Amino acid sequence: MKNISVFCPATIANISCGFDVLGVALESVGDEMIIRKVDQKGIRITKLTGQDLPIETHMNVAGVAGLALLAESDYEGGFEIEIHKKIKAGSGIGSSAASSTGAVWAMNELLGRPFSKLQLVKFAMEGERLASGVAHADNVAPALFGGFTLVRSYHPLDIVAIPSPPQLWATVIHPQIEIRTSDSRKILKTNITLADGIKQWGNLGGLVAGLFTEDYDLIGRSLIDHIVEPIRSILIPGFDKVKSVSLEAGALGCGISGSGPSIFAFSKGEETAKKVAGAMKEVYKKIGIDYDVHVSKVNVDGVRAL
Amino acid sequence: MKNISVFCPATIANISCGFDVLGVALESVGDEMIIRKVDQKGIRITKLTGQDLPIETHMNVAGVAGLALLAESDYEGGFEIEIHKKIKAGSGIGSSAASSTGAVWAMNELLGRPFSKLQLVKFAMEGERLASGVAHADNVAPALFGGFTLVRSYHPLDIVAIPSPPQLWATVIHPQIEIRTSDSRKILKTNITLADGIKQWGNLGGLVAGLFTEDYDLIGRSLIDHIVEPIRSILIPGFDKVKSVSLEAGALGCGISGSGPSIFAFSKGEETAKKVAGAMKEVYKKIGIDYDVHVSKVNVDGVRAL
Repeated sequence: MKNISVFCPATIANISCGFDVLGVALESVGDEMIIRKVDQKGIRITKLTGQDLPIETHMNVAGVAGLALLAESDYEGGFEIEIHKKIKAGSGIGSSAASSTGAVWAMNELLGRPFSKLQLVKFAMEGERLASGVAHADNVAPALFGGFTLVRSYHPLDIVAIPSPPQLWATVIHPQIEIRTSDSRKILKTNITLADGIKQWGNLGGLVAGLFTEDYDLIGRSLIDHIVEPIRSILIPGFDKVKSVSLEAGALGCGISGSGPSIFAFSKGEETAKKVAGAMKEVYKKIGIDYDVHVSKVNVDGVRAL
Repeated sequence: MKNISVFCPATIANISCGFDVLGVALESVGDEMIIRKVDQKGIRITKLTGQDLPIETHMNVAGVAGLALLAESDYEGGFEIEIHKKIKAGSGIGSSAASSTGAVWAMNELLGRPFSKLQLVKFAMEGERLASGVAHADNVAPALFGGFTLVRSYHPLDIVAIPSPPQLWATVIHPQIEIRTSDSRKILKTNITLADGIKQWGNLGGLVAGLFTEDYDLIGRSLIDHIVEPIRSILIPGFDKVKSVSLEAGALGCGISGSGPSIFAFSKGEETAKKVAGAMKEVYKKIGIDYDVHVSKVNVDGVRAL
């Protein structure tokens, strides 16, 4: 096999009580990429459509992730990468993670799978380091594994795959405003109260249990964030309203996707997820902010060949 | 049915990363009680063996829990309670919770089960309020439900039952020193760092996932407490040594039971759990502190009729 086309899913990270540890992959939103094995050493981005992003290898997240893989490989040739961005950069649904993950997953396939999934996560994290200054794994892990993933620990890196109940759907609205990841990290407090911490890990335990037992009500009751959402939501105009109309429309829970500005809601079933999308749209129509909306099943397989 | 004999299991609360939310019931350590339905209104403690504890109804945790149940019941008679304590008060393995839980579970049986398990937890929590000043649920819930239980939330009270893998065994050593619950709570800091919080909820998510998937290694990797153990363990002589010898003997993880002074370890299989017990004993023999040791399977059914 000399080349491969892949679909790399968008992802929601920082899922409410799972700040910095829990992410999930989406089925119907993602980048498409074509990766070719070539004799010439190194990585070249040969085409990039859909977004205005750097194509120099060292400036591109897929390029950097690919170089991290090559550095650990005994393969003597190189790769060409075509990237067709469908996920907007800066939207908060793992745009950079999709490209990084797609690149290293495809290369591993073309090389006969010399690397484990955990190793691929580490390579893709180098793309995240380029994109945001921090080599985080909470978008990369679900993009690669599919379903929900928990980053239990970074030192050593420990990724735990968590199943997704069959009827779980996500609605994501992306209001077209810009929030820099660095800004949304800066406003977080360094300290939290122990009391809030206890609530947070109680809810995360409940969420993980709900995902295993397919208990949609428990999932909904656990989708609470006492720590980050009250602070970060201030940066997202209309957040409180979007959340309240989503819950009224039947969503199980609603929160900030990644570091925003996208807002996600989970629902049981496609019908409710679409109803939630309709309710979310109305909020930004009234405020007068442009938006994109995605309604998607949870992707359970992660990045895949097309 | 006019009377019932019950076994009420000892419990480990504050399981490492599950501080204030996660507990587990033990199979081979627990109180025995006999509860009789009588015409005379109110609750009387007619016998109390094994420990020097108050038998006045309002001063006894089983009495207070029983009164809480009676107050919500339309039953016009009363109950007599015999308590045979096998769990030492102040040991940190849910002595008061066992008596409170046993009393209200037995009364509910004798009355034809008018109350849900969640309501019984609330009644038993009144016993905890008497014992420690705080109506906590993290020992009561596992004593009643069996296995592992998560107290996801107190307002409203939300208890999540979590399965226990079949080969999970606990070893508990109780060094005969006194730590008052109020003291061990006082030394906790009101604030924690967000970074430590993230590690804690990452580990709790991993622990819950490991319990569902029967992944003993993951359970072991997740049994880490960055927040409470480093502070509270200072109050328990020999803690660090007990922990290190337990892990060397093959334990999956080790931590403080409740607010101490008991120390628990989880192991895969009885043989390892016994080996851990041997290693723990040696530490206190050398220090010269008396101790009790329990080796027990996880109790999966909670309080039961004998």
